[in-house]
Amino acid sequence: MNPKVAQTPEPPYYAVIFTSVLSAETDGYEDMSDQLVRLLSDQEGFLGVESARSDVGITVSYWLNEASIEKWKEQFMHKQARSKGREKWYNSFVVRVAKVERDYSFNK
Amino acid sequence: MNPKVAQTPEPPYYAVIFTSVLSAETDGYEDMSDQLVRLLSDQEGFLGVESARSDVGITVSYWLNEASIEKWKEQFMHKQARSKGREKWYNSFVVRVAKVERDYSFNK
Repeated sequence: MNPKVAQTPEPPYYAVIFTSVLSAETDGYEDMSDQLVRLLSDQEGFLGVESARSDVGITVSYWLNEASIEKWKEQFMHKQARSKGREKWYNSFVVRVAKVERDYSFNK
Repeated sequence: MNPKVAQTPEPPYYAVIFTSVLSAETDGYEDMSDQLVRLLSDQEGFLGVESARSDVGITVSYWLNEASIEKWKEQFMHKQARSKGREKWYNSFVVRVAKVERDYSFNK
C-alpha cells in the first residue's frame, strides 16, 4: 500500500471508506491487497487511496464520481477479491460511500 | 482508541476523514489522542469513530449532521489539540468532510 496522504482535486468528489477486522486466515491477503492497489491506479475516475491497519483496517479510496465507483465494483479481480474476503479473510467489514463536500490540508 | 468498526445509523450521516503523517516529535500525542476520544463520546451528534495507523494514520469520525461537526471544531480541548498538532505532532494532514450516502456491512 502507498504510505501517502492522497492528493485529491477540489471537492466535490467521492470517498469509499472500507473498515475491516481480519479473521485468523490471512494467507493470500497481502498479495491480493497489493494487486488490487496496482489495479486501482488504472481505474477510470480513481483519484487516490489511503490505508492503515491497527486493530481495524481502514482503506479510503477516492473517486471522481459514483459511476467510477460502480465500474470498480464490477472489475473482475476486485469481484474475486471480495468473494474471497467474505469467505476467508474478514471477520467483519463496513463499506461507506460518501460525497466529500469540503477538505483542507496542512503541510509543515 | 476503540478497536472497533463503528456502529452507525442508516445514512445519510456525515464522516470526517482525518489522514495524517506524524513528525518525529510525538511526545504527548498518545495522551491527547486518548483524551480526545473520551471527549468525543460526549459530543452532541457523535455517532462513532474508527482509527488505524501504519505509515499514515487514518481516523474517521461519524456525525449526525454538519452542525455537530462544527460544534466539535469549537470544543476547547479539541482546539488546543489542533494547535499543538500543527506546531509539533504532524508533518502533514488532510481533513475531508463527507456525506455518507449509502453503506453496507458484513459479519461472519
